[in-house]
Amino acid sequence: MFAQPHAFPYKKGMKITFESAAEQIIGAGKRLDRLGLAPATAGNYSMRLHDGTLAMTVSGAHKGELTQSDIMRVDAEGKPLEDKKPSAETRLHTVLYAMFPEVNAVLHSHSVPLVVLTRNDPQAKFYNLEGYELLKVFPGIKTHDVRVSIPVFDNSQDMDDLGLQVQTVLRDRPSTPAYMIRAHGLYGWGRTMKEAAQVVEGLEVLLSCELETLKLKRG
Amino acid sequence: MFAQPHAFPYKKGMKITFESAAEQIIGAGKRLDRLGLAPATAGNYSMRLHDGTLAMTVSGAHKGELTQSDIMRVDAEGKPLEDKKPSAETRLHTVLYAMFPEVNAVLHSHSVPLVVLTRNDPQAKFYNLEGYELLKVFPGIKTHDVRVSIPVFDNSQDMDDLGLQVQTVLRDRPSTPAYMIRAHGLYGWGRTMKEAAQVVEGLEVLLSCELETLKLKRG
Amino acid sequence: MFAQPHAFPYKKGMKITFESAAEQIIGAGKRLDRLGLAPATAGNYSMRLHDGTLAMTVSGAHKGELTQSDIMRVDAEGKPLEDKKPSAETRLHTVLYAMFPEVNAVLHSHSVPLVVLTRNDPQAKFYNLEGYELLKVFPGIKTHDVRVSIPVFDNSQDMDDLGLQVQTVLRDRPSTPAYMIRAHGLYGWGRTMKEAAQVVEGLEVLLSCELETLKLKRG
Amino acid sequence: MFAQPHAFPYKKGMKITFESAAEQIIGAGKRLDRLGLAPATAGNYSMRLHDGTLAMTVSGAHKGELTQSDIMRVDAEGKPLEDKKPSAETRLHTVLYAMFPEVNAVLHSHSVPLVVLTRNDPQAKFYNLEGYELLKVFPGIKTHDVRVSIPVFDNSQDMDDLGLQVQTVLRDRPSTPAYMIRAHGLYGWGRTMKEAAQVVEGLEVLLSCELETLKLKRG
Repeated sequence: MFAQPHAFPYKKGMKITFESAAEQIIGAGKRLDRLGLAPATAGNYSMRLHDGTLAMTVSGAHKGELTQSDIMRVDAEGKPLEDKKPSAETRLHTVLYAMFPEVNAVLHSHSVPLVVLTRNDPQAKFYNLEGYELLKVFPGIKTHDVRVSIPVFDNSQDMDDLGLQVQTVLRDRPSTPAYMIRAHGLYGWGRTMKEAAQVVEGLEVLLSCELETLKLKRG
Repeated sequence: MFAQPHAFPYKKGMKITFESAAEQIIGAGKRLDRLGLAPATAGNYSMRLHDGTLAMTVSGAHKGELTQSDIMRVDAEGKPLEDKKPSAETRLHTVLYAMFPEVNAVLHSHSVPLVVLTRNDPQAKFYNLEGYELLKVFPGIKTHDVRVSIPVFDNSQDMDDLGLQVQTVLRDRPSTPAYMIRAHGLYGWGRTMKEAAQVVEGLEVLLSCELETLKLKRG
Repeated sequence: MFAQPHAFPYKKGMKITFESAAEQIIGAGKRLDRLGLAPATAGNYSMRLHDGTLAMTVSGAHKGELTQSDIMRVDAEGKPLEDKKPSAETRLHTVLYAMFPEVNAVLHSHSVPLVVLTRNDPQAKFYNLEGYELLKVFPGIKTHDVRVSIPVFDNSQDMDDLGLQVQTVLRDRPSTPAYMIRAHGLYGWGRTMKEAAQVVEGLEVLLSCELETLKLKRG
Repeated sequence: MFAQPHAFPYKKGMKITFESAAEQIIGAGKRLDRLGLAPATAGNYSMRLHDGTLAMTVSGAHKGELTQSDIMRVDAEGKPLEDKKPSAETRLHTVLYAMFPEVNAVLHSHSVPLVVLTRNDPQAKFYNLEGYELLKVFPGIKTHDVRVSIPVFDNSQDMDDLGLQVQTVLRDRPSTPAYMIRAHGLYGWGRTMKEAAQVVEGLEVLLSCELETLKLKRG
């Protein structure tokens, strides 16, 4: 997927500094909060920096009101490089950066439709989305006439175990744009923060469409 | 429809400059985004300028955060007049401007209710709206006691083909204020940007009414 | 109702100027628009001035973006006192001011739940609301343990006729805080703009509760 | 619950002044209003000050537009310490501060899902929430794999009686993060305003999940 030509310029050799990453993370938080995708202190966001370390949100901050002090540096394994506590889900970020060298931004959102849909089908391992124009917001998708399968994992507080599951499933499906955790939220990523944000926003809208459709079908 | 007296002043001979058009397009994007009608990078907008060329949004920009550099000039056939890539759906704008000399603004929105309703009735060629006061936001409609039929087209990635279908259907129905594309979005237009925006906003509210009504009926 | 002691100070002899009224109307429009109660150009608002004339929104303006020039003076019968076109529903404002000397502000909102609920029960002459804490936002209501009946009128483009119906029904029910027009919207009023706004906002929330409840019952 | 280590620093001996409390209350009001949790003039908020008195919202103010003059001091029993009228529900705040010495902030929100869900099951004394990741926003909850029971009280205008019921139920359940009043709203609290706000916001999102799930089940 990432090898294909793409609408958003990924400048090879682009040097992302901590300050630029922090600014982009703060902006993403404001937007996801406004869209209802960052309730309470839920969610966590990161970017890969020019030196391979990560800018990561700290634990417990409200994502709509982030300041630079709510963002910290961790190394590629997620170990803190300063005296703050990174998000408890840092492992789920480092897994993605390790698997996909092109990925420079990861966003984790929460939403009502995701929680309701994944609880409604408690055995499903994938959520299939088909026939939507908005599928084209996923990198590499050029037509609505396609089926995209989003992996669904059961929720867990064991991040190493969850990270391993993610790794195993994504290894065989490198063009997957995002995955979901049941009754929890979704992870979306991209070469740029803009791309990651559009993946998350697009997928959340598609989940809203699915939930509304299901209500009509249940009648 | 456009020949009738109208609440919004269309000043004959009004000279729309690129700068004014860009400002109006940026404003429309902010509003549609706030209303949830421009998710991710979805949607595209244009205005006709005083010399017959068009101001058109470029491909891939987020519509809630447009700057003047995200808007470009294309000629009446949609060919770029500067070194940028116009929206992939430019053809659907030029078709409308060619058919309706009075039209100076075209907006394309995306929404959950539109996607759900058009998928729910996959054979429908028209969506009928009847008895709503808000139908009066469509130019020329003076009463709620009326039925307005909005054309629905199947989605396609072939813009020439889709443009031709639009042309064929609208030729016989010149007072149509908007049309829908299944599982995709809607196009609305007007003599001014204000008129186009009110058509889009009004129609999207009516589709929300229809979706909520359908949920009650399915029970 | 209006004779009772009240949380919001109505200063007898309060002199409302056009400038103050315009400012309050602009503020009400921004809020109702943000709440989704003023879609497209729908709705109209007014205040009674110190000399018995009215400040009234002009026809066709977007209520979320009002400026002072979108507000005009009309006399107590609704005749324009300047060279602008007042809202087509001005008659529905003057009827209320004529009946209720204490009323100084009238707001007319549109919403999806109101349209869906009033269409869903096309014969109903009243909509009963019962047992909600939020009923206490209506002036004079001191407990949730009460039933409030909101009149519902069929929609009409004949404002004189509709005004007469409103007059007839409200004459016997002077403590009514608001009424609804089927498939159209609601009128709410108060001694101050703040009171009118709280009536409208409270009633719209209650209608949302009713619609959601109906969805559960239809299952 | 409050004895456990916690992500948000409660600085023992932290001196909360009236000015700081007022600022935090104003901020909470803006946010709850934006989330639709403070319709019309509904809701009331407070903080405990360094000297044991309380900063409390006055009766009748719009919570999204609070100014410092809408916030007043009352003593620990809720008696006014200045010439203003405190919220009619002040008693429900003082009960919580008296029971829980660690609590410094109390928020009372209103929402459509809460009203609909509590009316839908009119006999329920508790609302059980289970399996949601977002349960972790409640202090002391470390996993989604848990059931949290939120007490539900019947609505009443007798605050002494309601306060007594709250006291009786919470005495046996000191780790309860919030309670609900049927057809009315919820109370959430915390050691800091930030903690109280996250409890309220998190619980309201969970109620939205419950309502959407119930719609699917009823079909």
